[in-house]
Amino acid sequence: MNSFQKTPKKEVEEMIVNQMPRDVLSREKADELRRRTGAEIVDVESLLDLGERLDEVTAIIPRWRLKAEDLDLLPNLRWIQSFSAGVNTYPLAEIAKRGILLTNTRGTHAPQMSDQIMGMVLAFSRPLMECIRHQKERRWQVDYPLEELTEKTLLIVGAGSIGQLLAKKAKAFDMKVVGLKRHPEALPDYDEVRPLDQLEVSLGEADYVVLLAPLTPSTRGMLGEKELRLLKPTAVLINAARGPLVEEAALLRALQEKWFRGAGLDVFSKEPLPEDSPLWDLENLILTPHIGGFSDRHTDRTVDFLVRNIGHYERGEPLENLVDLEEGY
Amino acid sequence: MNSFQKTPKKEVEEMIVNQMPRDVLSREKADELRRRTGAEIVDVESLLDLGERLDEVTAIIPRWRLKAEDLDLLPNLRWIQSFSAGVNTYPLAEIAKRGILLTNTRGTHAPQMSDQIMGMVLAFSRPLMECIRHQKERRWQVDYPLEELTEKTLLIVGAGSIGQLLAKKAKAFDMKVVGLKRHPEALPDYDEVRPLDQLEVSLGEADYVVLLAPLTPSTRGMLGEKELRLLKPTAVLINAARGPLVEEAALLRALQEKWFRGAGLDVFSKEPLPEDSPLWDLENLILTPHIGGFSDRHTDRTVDFLVRNIGHYERGEPLENLVDLEEGY
Repeated sequence: MNSFQKTPKKEVEEMIVNQMPRDVLSREKADELRRRTGAEIVDVESLLDLGERLDEVTAIIPRWRLKAEDLDLLPNLRWIQSFSAGVNTYPLAEIAKRGILLTNTRGTHAPQMSDQIMGMVLAFSRPLMECIRHQKERRWQVDYPLEELTEKTLLIVGAGSIGQLLAKKAKAFDMKVVGLKRHPEALPDYDEVRPLDQLEVSLGEADYVVLLAPLTPSTRGMLGEKELRLLKPTAVLINAARGPLVEEAALLRALQEKWFRGAGLDVFSKEPLPEDSPLWDLENLILTPHIGGFSDRHTDRTVDFLVRNIGHYERGEPLENLVDLEEGY
Repeated sequence: MNSFQKTPKKEVEEMIVNQMPRDVLSREKADELRRRTGAEIVDVESLLDLGERLDEVTAIIPRWRLKAEDLDLLPNLRWIQSFSAGVNTYPLAEIAKRGILLTNTRGTHAPQMSDQIMGMVLAFSRPLMECIRHQKERRWQVDYPLEELTEKTLLIVGAGSIGQLLAKKAKAFDMKVVGLKRHPEALPDYDEVRPLDQLEVSLGEADYVVLLAPLTPSTRGMLGEKELRLLKPTAVLINAARGPLVEEAALLRALQEKWFRGAGLDVFSKEPLPEDSPLWDLENLILTPHIGGFSDRHTDRTVDFLVRNIGHYERGEPLENLVDLEEGY
């Protein structure tokens, strides 16, 4: 390509910038995106590497987050495609003010997230967590509390696409499935879907509480000491969404003082979890390093979705998975 | 009751002996059996405690096992109701020779057994086993192999009542479910049911291999070195049935030398697993102390079944869950 050709082309350029790290979206997968969409997708680590081409950028797949200052660098930005489902790392008000569209990848995480959550549930109910811990001590202990999931109540706080598949899996275990949703509606596989203002009564009824709500100003700290004290002594809390949904200091106390049976946490207020966090020491906690959204198939599924959404974008069609910038999800 | 009344009554007595330990079938539950059936059910630890009443015994719920010598003590025994599903601890040939009926409790273990197995599967796929082990080291490691169960192949060796519910649960995870059965038939929730002679080819295709076969002379050691070497390097073996289905020395070598990914074992050649067993040390093994069959609901479910079967017995109706004494299950 010589400069003669480049100059006029530049004026009509619609450049999509891909900032995803290679260990999540490999070079091959980024090439696949280019090949399948025909779009000009430029992989860069830092936006500054684009130099004078910054004004060509009309769409971006950021590296998990974006700052308001980044928006200043991209005067022609019309679309942000988040690689994650949660968009709490984006400056939503700024994005709204500039009339930029934000889309997420909700729907691509449901199989692996619901696997992870069911695994945590079963690690408590059977009790694999304790057996794995006791193995090193060569302890053949047979007086574990042994549960089956039949007719146990699973409360899904934030009944979205992950919750839908989780509900389906939980029903195969004959669980009672209750969902909480800001805008409740009848949903398949749920025994009941309630409005969010029934959180407190629902917490008191549940055997397993699973947080899948988006992190927004109104959900931040939705489980504090008051709410955690409502859980049954036998209940298990699983947070696979975002750490700050729960007040971590209250949760730590709850687990240390055994207000309820235990917790499975894939997310934390600060990640990586600091080495000096007392959470590491808890015997009634399963701690996983924010891996719920990943699997051997999730990149392919995300690429398929991105190809579809980039296609919509290129053809001027409505985008899928638009985020409501007011609601924050 | 005075001796005058006792003597004539004794001649028509149909006594059912219950030898189950109290920590499995509590006094209250045994009373419930008596109340709901109206049958004379006598709880004893040792048969010798019955003294001269031994010849009144026409039915027995033994303490997990029975020896051929025990049968000599019970000249009028017509029915043995095993509390377990597996009957490998009974002298089947002797029972057959004497024309005694043997029934088991198959069907009552399916919810908790299939929970246990799905929990073990997910402890590998997500990978909760490794996370639980690494928690003590305060290790925030993010390069775990992360799987989802979508389209993974679950091979169920011994497609009976537990396998049926396991297949249903696995299908909710969108797994491919293949069953092996001595007498194959089309079964709901299975993608395919094959005859047992297709074990070897099936082992080579499976991501998760679950043993649920009864222990009989023909299944003992069905997985030896030759078969274990057929598993895919990424495969996981789960034995929730009976330890001797697998040659334990070969399995130990397989796990030490990592012929495949790992194993979940609820059963062992010798139980309790001896403290000096090298199995305790394996990092690629989840070891549970033969708890798969127990849960918070299983005693009630078993009592319901026993009430039904004792009712059949008392009314001279055909018994449920008859064991084929030739086949051994």
